[in-house]
Amino acid sequence: MDPLHSPLLTDLYQLTMLHTYYRQRMEATAVFEFFVRKLPEHRNFMMAAGLEQALDFLEQARFGPEELEWIARSGLFTPEFPKHLEQWRFSGDVHAMPEGTIFFPDEPILRVTASMPQAQLIESRLMNLVHFESLVATKAARSVLVARGKKLVDFGLRRAHGAEAGLLAARAAYLAGYDSTATVLAGSRFGIPVVGTMAHSFVQAHDDEAQAFIDFARAFPRGTIFLVDTYDTEAGVRKVVKLAPQLEREGITVRGIRLDSGDLGQLARAARGLLDEAGLRKAVVFASGNLDEYRMRELLEAGAPIDGFGVGTSLVTSADAPFLDAVYKLQEYAGRPRRKRSTAKATWPGRKQVFRVSDRAGIFERDIVTVEGDEQAGEPLLMPVMREGRRLGSPEPLDHIRERARGGLERLPRRLADLETASEPYCVDISPALRRLAEEVDRATAGPLESVS
Amino acid sequence: MDPLHSPLLTDLYQLTMLHTYYRQRMEATAVFEFFVRKLPEHRNFMMAAGLEQALDFLEQARFGPEELEWIARSGLFTPEFPKHLEQWRFSGDVHAMPEGTIFFPDEPILRVTASMPQAQLIESRLMNLVHFESLVATKAARSVLVARGKKLVDFGLRRAHGAEAGLLAARAAYLAGYDSTATVLAGSRFGIPVVGTMAHSFVQAHDDEAQAFIDFARAFPRGTIFLVDTYDTEAGVRKVVKLAPQLEREGITVRGIRLDSGDLGQLARAARGLLDEAGLRKAVVFASGNLDEYRMRELLEAGAPIDGFGVGTSLVTSADAPFLDAVYKLQEYAGRPRRKRSTAKATWPGRKQVFRVSDRAGIFERDIVTVEGDEQAGEPLLMPVMREGRRLGSPEPLDHIRERARGGLERLPRRLADLETASEPYCVDISPALRRLAEEVDRATAGPLESVS
Repeated sequence: MDPLHSPLLTDLYQLTMLHTYYRQRMEATAVFEFFVRKLPEHRNFMMAAGLEQALDFLEQARFGPEELEWIARSGLFTPEFPKHLEQWRFSGDVHAMPEGTIFFPDEPILRVTASMPQAQLIESRLMNLVHFESLVATKAARSVLVARGKKLVDFGLRRAHGAEAGLLAARAAYLAGYDSTATVLAGSRFGIPVVGTMAHSFVQAHDDEAQAFIDFARAFPRGTIFLVDTYDTEAGVRKVVKLAPQLEREGITVRGIRLDSGDLGQLARAARGLLDEAGLRKAVVFASGNLDEYRMRELLEAGAPIDGFGVGTSLVTSADAPFLDAVYKLQEYAGRPRRKRSTAKATWPGRKQVFRVSDRAGIFERDIVTVEGDEQAGEPLLMPVMREGRRLGSPEPLDHIRERARGGLERLPRRLADLETASEPYCVDISPALRRLAEEVDRATAGPLESVS
Repeated sequence: MDPLHSPLLTDLYQLTMLHTYYRQRMEATAVFEFFVRKLPEHRNFMMAAGLEQALDFLEQARFGPEELEWIARSGLFTPEFPKHLEQWRFSGDVHAMPEGTIFFPDEPILRVTASMPQAQLIESRLMNLVHFESLVATKAARSVLVARGKKLVDFGLRRAHGAEAGLLAARAAYLAGYDSTATVLAGSRFGIPVVGTMAHSFVQAHDDEAQAFIDFARAFPRGTIFLVDTYDTEAGVRKVVKLAPQLEREGITVRGIRLDSGDLGQLARAARGLLDEAGLRKAVVFASGNLDEYRMRELLEAGAPIDGFGVGTSLVTSADAPFLDAVYKLQEYAGRPRRKRSTAKATWPGRKQVFRVSDRAGIFERDIVTVEGDEQAGEPLLMPVMREGRRLGSPEPLDHIRERARGGLERLPRRLADLETASEPYCVDISPALRRLAEEVDRATAGPLESVS
């Protein structure tokens, strides 16, 4: 049983609801939408990601013998239920914003249209994938805005929340504009460039730091980045500088040095000075160690001569905002728009489309959320991506997605490109048609409970 | 290729270092220890977890044809390197604190003794597993301390960071004292009790809330918990109360109601009142919706009649502290203790043991970190768990681990059982023998750089 595609990767209530839907023959078409209710702290926009993995899951999820056996053994269900599940396939439609699209609260980024038992069961895993990748793409985009062309590398696997988090974080960071990852499996699975230097343990295992540098350089003659802070950073840089001529004679390029502790700004300046003095102008200064977008901005604004950053934990856990207020809500069932009206959690009903209006320079100006079929100015953002359980077209190459993300970040109003919360948030209008629909739904049920926005 | 056991679930530098170790025949015994450098904010202790998955990984990791092909194609290595990797197995020893053990900064909770190429390669995935499960067990233990016997359920899959995070968080929460999880696959894999109620979408899909309740109850006659807040919470409870006699005649038990929004304290009181009035004294009030240990404490201290809590996002992302400052450091190589001396990141060298001293009532008093072989008062915490690549004994049943965790929480000094940072942290002494060893290592290398503690 592949745990990443198992339909048991779900909440029990999905199965108990399914059981009830089958019993009651409630198999009419349901429409669910995935959206984020509000921006997390310190965020002015979000970036959509994870669609590729979500579609893959929808195509592959099946109840196999092991799953069916667990269901039968659980004693929770009637004996007919496993028979229904054996036939269960996702054969519905999906509309979505392409990955790498900038989005805002209340905007559906994914819509599922399928029979109720199909659309319901997939909720947990679909959210699990799209929520996490969008979370990390959103976080990564912030360093991309700050780094302005400096190299960014994902170093996060060890403190990512499990293996899949490590892999998907590498993917989400790359599509948002990171240059590479240290995670080998992410390279082999997604074709992301993989890079790496050396660890302190390597230097420590040698009795002599310079010998460690020589050993490593000879193993990788095309260019090595030397980790110089195991004992004394400046002394480490001096050793590299001293070794450089010998290495050069052996045909080995000193690609640069990595700093991983201490006052990175001051040490970068010292290292740059020593490297330049020795004529190693092309050698890069690479920095890592508890970095996030705030610290990178600080270093770059202070003029620290750093050419690239390795970012780990803060990126892959989105440490300052480790989740989005993301939900997957029923908006229509059996042809009738639906609306949840729980206190502070009310939703806009019906199938929706989002239009994005840009100014003449191409900068995003405002979005309009409306009911599907209501034409508005601007560019529609939700596209059909799956029909009757099959993808429309082949998976989008990661570099296309990356290009879209880059374009989106360039077209972001300047006030939203800041790390701090913009005093004026991006304008997301709810169309008159959508407001009317919400009122109609309220009238048809129990009267208006509260206003959503 | 099973991504959860792939040896490519590593950082590229592990492979480049490996390549160099093979070239240089640096295959002597290395000793690495996993520990946390400091407590995250709002934490007074941590709880060890993830050992089971770590040992499983060590037993199963192999380079298969796909991995070797990627290595060969990468062009980074010499043609001999894949041949070395084909033979790669983990055949080392592991010492560890058993899962569910309370631990503190600077205390190794896991030690790997193996040839350098073995001990180095596994770093990324070992950390990825032990870091995350310990993070969540630590977070979960806080709700367990607060809940004082109220039922706690993990609801976190949808916003966990990927599938493995959802599964391992369910496991870590359960071993720390949670009662159950909503994640079905965690139930089927780990034998954790799985529970679930119903979602708002289920109620919304029905034209009538009461009909939704009847449909569900008939499908689960042994007892249903009704979600009452889709439209108007008190009205929802009244519907349950009104239906109860009819359901009872059909042999169906009203097990309780779930609140998922609004002022949970006030609504719980109102619901409890209505249920009691109707004679439904055994029906429980279950609460969920953006809960964490702080909110639960607040509700319980205010006397809210809540019998159980569903905790999701805050638990599985450890939202207020989404990572630990966990590291895996080389402490000895080729029989010589080693020490990293980077600024603010210096480590204690050598193979270590941790002793825990308790007072007469069994309450933990202080720990002593010392070199292996140095006998100290108290109970030694690190045990041999793997020898020459094979586990010593079968996997520990999760309920044993849970019992250990419960015992540890009971023996915690009262000041540490608080949600706020204790004014006086737990005492972790570094033994004279370990201090002497650090000095010797410094003298043997470049003289003392800085003091560690």
